[in-house]
Amino acid sequence: ETVRAYQAAHGPAILRDFATLLAIPNVASDRTGIEANAEYIQAQMRAVGITTELWRIPGVSPAIYGALDSPGATRTLGIYVHYDGQPADPSNWTHGPWEPTLYNRAMPAGGQPIAMPEDGAVIDPEWRIYARSAGDDKAPLGALIPVMRALNEAGITPTANLRFFLEGEEEAGSNNLEAYLSSHRTELDEIDAWLFFDGPVHQSGRPQITFGVRGVTGMSLTTYGPRRPLHSGHYGNWAPVPGQLMADLLASMKNGDTGEVLVEGFYDTVEPLGEMERAALASAPDYDRELQYELALGGTEGSPASLAERLLLPSLTVRGLSSGNVGALARNVIPSTAEAALGIRLVKGNQPGHMMDLVEAHIRSQGYHIVYEEPSDDVLRAHPKVIRVSRDSGYPAARTEMDHPAVQPIIAAARRATDQEMVLLPAMGGSLPLYLFTDMLGKPALIVPVANHDNNQHAPDENLRVANLWYAMDLYATLLTAR
Amino acid sequence: ETVRAYQAAHGPAILRDFATLLAIPNVASDRTGIEANAEYIQAQMRAVGITTELWRIPGVSPAIYGALDSPGATRTLGIYVHYDGQPADPSNWTHGPWEPTLYNRAMPAGGQPIAMPEDGAVIDPEWRIYARSAGDDKAPLGALIPVMRALNEAGITPTANLRFFLEGEEEAGSNNLEAYLSSHRTELDEIDAWLFFDGPVHQSGRPQITFGVRGVTGMSLTTYGPRRPLHSGHYGNWAPVPGQLMADLLASMKNGDTGEVLVEGFYDTVEPLGEMERAALASAPDYDRELQYELALGGTEGSPASLAERLLLPSLTVRGLSSGNVGALARNVIPSTAEAALGIRLVKGNQPGHMMDLVEAHIRSQGYHIVYEEPSDDVLRAHPKVIRVSRDSGYPAARTEMDHPAVQPIIAAARRATDQEMVLLPAMGGSLPLYLFTDMLGKPALIVPVANHDNNQHAPDENLRVANLWYAMDLYATLLTAR
Repeated sequence: ETVRAYQAAHGPAILRDFATLLAIPNVASDRTGIEANAEYIQAQMRAVGITTELWRIPGVSPAIYGALDSPGATRTLGIYVHYDGQPADPSNWTHGPWEPTLYNRAMPAGGQPIAMPEDGAVIDPEWRIYARSAGDDKAPLGALIPVMRALNEAGITPTANLRFFLEGEEEAGSNNLEAYLSSHRTELDEIDAWLFFDGPVHQSGRPQITFGVRGVTGMSLTTYGPRRPLHSGHYGNWAPVPGQLMADLLASMKNGDTGEVLVEGFYDTVEPLGEMERAALASAPDYDRELQYELALGGTEGSPASLAERLLLPSLTVRGLSSGNVGALARNVIPSTAEAALGIRLVKGNQPGHMMDLVEAHIRSQGYHIVYEEPSDDVLRAHPKVIRVSRDSGYPAARTEMDHPAVQPIIAAARRATDQEMVLLPAMGGSLPLYLFTDMLGKPALIVPVANHDNNQHAPDENLRVANLWYAMDLYATLLTAR
Repeated sequence: ETVRAYQAAHGPAILRDFATLLAIPNVASDRTGIEANAEYIQAQMRAVGITTELWRIPGVSPAIYGALDSPGATRTLGIYVHYDGQPADPSNWTHGPWEPTLYNRAMPAGGQPIAMPEDGAVIDPEWRIYARSAGDDKAPLGALIPVMRALNEAGITPTANLRFFLEGEEEAGSNNLEAYLSSHRTELDEIDAWLFFDGPVHQSGRPQITFGVRGVTGMSLTTYGPRRPLHSGHYGNWAPVPGQLMADLLASMKNGDTGEVLVEGFYDTVEPLGEMERAALASAPDYDRELQYELALGGTEGSPASLAERLLLPSLTVRGLSSGNVGALARNVIPSTAEAALGIRLVKGNQPGHMMDLVEAHIRSQGYHIVYEEPSDDVLRAHPKVIRVSRDSGYPAARTEMDHPAVQPIIAAARRATDQEMVLLPAMGGSLPLYLFTDMLGKPALIVPVANHDNNQHAPDENLRVANLWYAMDLYATLLTAR
C-alpha cells in the first residue's frame, strides 16, 4: 500500500527515470555503453541505501554486486537482473532502439507516440514505453529502485537481507558468469534462495512463477558456391548454388510442418518430468488458441501439442538466413556463400556440446566436409561440399523442485501481490544461466517475470506496458516485506 | 590497322573517356541517372557523325536510336547495346560502383589502384577498370565511339549502313523493348542482320560468336511465421519458422548436389538441338577443369556434364535468401518472414509463364496457399502454410540457325579480327531479349561479346580488362569495314 501510494504520487517521475535508464545503449560488446550503464545503475542503487561494488574481469562487462542488510532479517534473498540487451538493427525499428518513446497504446493496436508525462499528469496503465531492454531486462531495475525509495521514505525495512547480482552480458551468452560466481563464493553462499527478475508473464496476462529454464546454444553455418559471385545465366545449372545447398541441408535437419527435428539422437537425452511438474502443466491455462489468433498462425509446429508441452522438448530454429540479395536488390547471380544462424534450446538432460556434436554428425552424413575457419581455395577444391561451422558456447537447462521448502514462503508472498491466479510452470521456454545457481552454487532459484508477454523482447520495437511496471512494483514490495 | 594506330596514339584519352561514361549511375529505376546517360551517349554519337534521336515511352528509360548511311553500302547492320546496368549494393564494392577506378591487375591477382593515365603514357593491356557496367554493357560504347572517330579521321567509311539501337532497361527485364521495336518497325525493317554487342568472351579467353541465348524469368517467394518476430526460447518448437519452411520448399524443388530440378514438367518442353549445333558444341574448347580450379569448386551441378551442355537446359537458381539476421546481428528470434529470390533460365521451347505455372503447381503440391499480395491476418489464420509469390515478366530463349546466309560474311570478318580460333556456340547461358529480333522482327541475330569472362558482371567489383577494350576496337573496325 505504501508503494501504491508512492506510485500514484510519483508515476511520471518513475517513467522518466526508467526512460533515462533505457536511453543508455547496452549491447554487451559495446564497452562504452556497458560502462555507462554500470555507472548509472550503481549510482541509483547507492541513492536508495544499497552498498555496491563492481566485480570486474578485464575486457568484459562488469557485474554489479549490491548488499542491503536489515535488522532482524532471518534469511537472505539473492536478486538477479541483467542490464545488457540484445543487439538491435536500427533499420527495423520505428524509433532508435535507445531512444525511449512513450505510446498511448501498443503500436499494433494503433498506438501513437506521446510526450513523457509532467509531474502530476494522470498515467494510463495501457501506455507502452518502446526501447531495447524495456522488457528484457531493465524493467526490474525500473521498478526496484522506486520500490526501495518508497520503503525508505516510509521507514519500512525489508524482511530479508538482500543481495543483488546484476549481470552485463546475459544476451551475449553469459560467458563469464561462472567465473564471476565462482570467484565470489563467500559472498554468494550467504544466499538462501535466488529470485530471477527476468522474462515475460504468461500470455494470458496472469502472473507467473517458473521453476526452471531451457538451456541454449547456437551454431552458424556457411555453405560455399563459386569463389566469386557468378552470372546466373552464364553459369546457372553448373556452378553449385550455396543457397540451394543450405536449403537442402536445413530441410534434412527438420520438418518445418511437423516441427520434428530429424537429427539422429536429438531427443534421446531428454529427462522425463516428475509427477508434480506434470500436474502443474495440466493445470496451466490453455491460451494457445488466443495466441494463434494474435500471431496470425494457421498452424503450429507439433500440433496438436500445446505450447507448454512443446517447451519441454529441445528445439532447433532457423533464426537467420542470408545469401545474395532479395527484393529490389536481387541480382542475377549465383552467390559465393549462404549463411544460416541456428538456435538450439535444451531441456533438462541435454548438454550443449553433445547436441552440437549430433548436428555436426548429421551435417557430415549429408556429405559435407566441416571446417571451423574460413576455408582456403585448396580446401574448397578438395571437397564437393564444404561447410563452415561456428559453435556458440551456450549452457544447459536447470530446474528447481516445486516442493523445495525455501521457495514456499516466496510463492505465498507473490500470490498476495495480485488478485489473479498465479501460473506455476516447471520450466519456461526461454533461457537463463540458471544452472550455475541451482547446480554450481546449489541453491533454489525461481523465475519471477514481470514484462508483458508481447514485449517484443529480442526483436525490433521492444516495449514495456506501464501496467506491468506497476505490477512489478507491487510484486517486489510484497516479496521484500513478506514475513 | 588505322584503328590500331589510333589506339596507340590516343589510348589514355580512350580510357579517360570510358571512365567518364562509367561514372554516370545507370540503374534503370534511377530516372535522373538514366537521362544523364542518354544525353551523354547521344552527344558522343553525334560527335562522330551518327544521326541520333531518343525514342520515348513516358516514365521509362528512353531508347537511343542512331543511323549512319555510307555511300555504296549494300546491306544494313543493326547494332544493339544496352546502357543500363544491374543494381549495386555499394557496401559490397571495394570502390563505389560509379567511381571508376583503374587497377594495374585484377584485384584477386593482387592488383593495386593506379591513376588514370596522362596523354602519352604507356598502357598495360592487363590493367583493369572497375565500375558497374564496365563489362555489361558499356564496354561496347567505350570501343565504338573511338573506332568511329579513328575511321572518320582516316576518311574511311563503313561498308554497311549502320543502325544503332541502345536499350536503357535491359537489366530491369526489357519490359518496354517490344513496344519500342514494334512502334518503329519502319526504321528497323531496313536491317538485314543484328549484332548484339553484349556479354563476355569464352572463359578460355578465346573470341566467341553465339547464335542464341537462354530466356530468363524469376520469382520472389515469401513464407510466413508469426506476425511479429518471437523470442525463440519462449516460442521455439511451437511457432512455425519461416526460414525452415522456405528451406523445405526449396529443397523439394531441386537437388543441390545433382542440380536436378524436381518441379514436375520442368524439362518437358526443351527443344532438341540440330546436328550443326551438336557439332559446334562438340568442338567447343573444354575449359571446365580450369574454371573449376579458378572458382575453387570441388564439384559441379550435373557433373560430369560440361558447362556448355548444362547451359542448354533450363535452370532454377536460388539467387537470394533472407530471414532475420545472421552473423553478429543474429538474434534469438523466430522471424516473421523468409524471402527467396529465384532465377529461372529458359531454353528454346520453354515459355516463361508456363515455367512459372509449373513452379506454382509444385508449391501448391507442398501444401501452400498462394497469394500475390501481402496476405491479411485472416488469410494467414485460415491456412496452415501461406506463401506470397511475385512473378517477373521475363522472356523466352532465341536461336539463329548457324547456316543462315546473312551471317556468313560477319563470321568471316570477325575471324579476321583475331589471331585466335573463334569459338562458335549455339547458345550462351546468359539472357538477352533476342527473341524480339529473331522471332518478332524476323531477322538473324548474332551475339558478339567482348568483355573478359571474369568481369564480375551483375556482381560487386565489375571490371573490364583493357586488352578486351582493345580487342573490341579491333573487332568492331573489322566488322564495320568488311567487304
